[in-house]
Amino acid sequence: MRLRNKPWAEDFIAAHPHIVIPNPEDYKGKWGELFQNDKPLHIEVGTGKGQFVTGMAKANPDINYMGIELYDSVIVSALENALEAGTLPNLKLLKVNGAHLAKFFEKNDVSRVYLNFSDPWPKTRHEKRRLSHGNFLKLYESILVDNGEVHFKTDNRGLFEFSLMSMSAYGMLLKYVSLDLHANMPEDNIMTEYEEKFSAKGQPIYRLESQFLTKKAD
Amino acid sequence: MRLRNKPWAEDFIAAHPHIVIPNPEDYKGKWGELFQNDKPLHIEVGTGKGQFVTGMAKANPDINYMGIELYDSVIVSALENALEAGTLPNLKLLKVNGAHLAKFFEKNDVSRVYLNFSDPWPKTRHEKRRLSHGNFLKLYESILVDNGEVHFKTDNRGLFEFSLMSMSAYGMLLKYVSLDLHANMPEDNIMTEYEEKFSAKGQPIYRLESQFLTKKAD
Ligand SMILES: C[S@@+](CC[C@H](N)C(=O)[O-])C[C@H]1O[C@@H](n2cnc3c(N)ncnc32)[C@H](O)[C@@H]1O
Ligand SMILES: C[S@@+](CC[C@H](N)C(=O)[O-])C[C@H]1O[C@@H](n2cnc3c(N)ncnc32)[C@H](O)[C@@H]1O
Repeated sequence: MRLRNKPWAEDFIAAHPHIVIPNPEDYKGKWGELFQNDKPLHIEVGTGKGQFVTGMAKANPDINYMGIELYDSVIVSALENALEAGTLPNLKLLKVNGAHLAKFFEKNDVSRVYLNFSDPWPKTRHEKRRLSHGNFLKLYESILVDNGEVHFKTDNRGLFEFSLMSMSAYGMLLKYVSLDLHANMPEDNIMTEYEEKFSAKGQPIYRLESQFLTKKAD
Repeated sequence: MRLRNKPWAEDFIAAHPHIVIPNPEDYKGKWGELFQNDKPLHIEVGTGKGQFVTGMAKANPDINYMGIELYDSVIVSALENALEAGTLPNLKLLKVNGAHLAKFFEKNDVSRVYLNFSDPWPKTRHEKRRLSHGNFLKLYESILVDNGEVHFKTDNRGLFEFSLMSMSAYGMLLKYVSLDLHANMPEDNIMTEYEEKFSAKGQPIYRLESQFLTKKAD
């Protein structure tokens, strides 16, 4: 994602605290208070300009969505997208690092994690930064409900191969795998910005759904 | 595989009992007697014309190989391939149905199962015929050593997706996954007949290595 300098970004974000939550640590264990309901919470880590999470929030009013993005300069676009979409009480954004999710969420807070076109970090020495690395899976498991799911889309072959192996090694179930999502496009597929870009170039889009399995007591 | 009528096939096979083993049930639990050594045994189910299994036997003299094929008219080509390759004491062929492996092998007889370009059986109502269906995985597990492996190559996207899900659902570990084998061709890759044909057309070749995990005692 190209980072433009947006000096107004910080003020614009601060002016919309009902969408970009300024104090997420206050809601740990009680996100229902923020959304004022007990609907399941699905989060997208690395939400970018937020097209996916906004589209999902529109399409699925019975689920709460939260787009998580590291950069001010990017999340402002997600905020603009959210504002343009009109009133979406089930959509919030967080400007935090996905590596710090445990500061803001505890076990059972989240029902599903979405990863879309995550940064591939192709060098082996950077593999711990991949959002599907075992360390991140452990983090997701620690905030998800039992049998919680991770749904992942990407155009990046190396990252997808890594993710299949990483999730399998973690003991996750691979419930669904598509190696060319757009060949049999599911009716309810919501495209991300990157998905539009790469599928227009004719590249296959990979997709998986994986699930944490509750371990039997020893 | 196109089946030509080969009336001489039966006689030709019968004339080479040291390669196409006529009495495999006699070796159940004691295949070392046939090979006259205790090297690990790797079998390919659906060996076709045998190019893969012959190439592997040549390249890896410390492993015993067995190509398993259902049809007379096809296994004769594998036999011709084996004869042309010269003396390969570590290569045998079996003309049997892969669904009947348990008649000829028992637990620990086999160290690895290869599946290459297996028939895809694309219709859902035929999925039990796919060689990576759970029923077949159970059969392989019953004749493999503990932590035995299944190595699978195909050009067929649907069959590969199914196999990833089927193996994961069975509790197998996906040790290795490539979604474009020929993009980073491993030096020791031995091409099958189908692999040559489909990769020449520019289709990606998918490959995986999966492993049965020994269950902890309950
Ligand atoms: C390649 S973009 C994809 C954006 C969007 N999901 C899509 O599919 O179009 C990856 C995004 O993830 C964000 N990101 C990367 N690492 C992150 C992290 N640790 N926490 C939060 N966001 C992160 C990046 O800033 C970038 O906006
Ligand atoms: C598509 S061909 C692939 C041949 C070869 N492995 C390759 O990659 O070129 C599949 C082969 O599997 C054989 N086959 C299918 N089902 C089988 C079974 N149940 N037992 C043994 N062989 C089988 C077929 O007769 C055919 O020769």
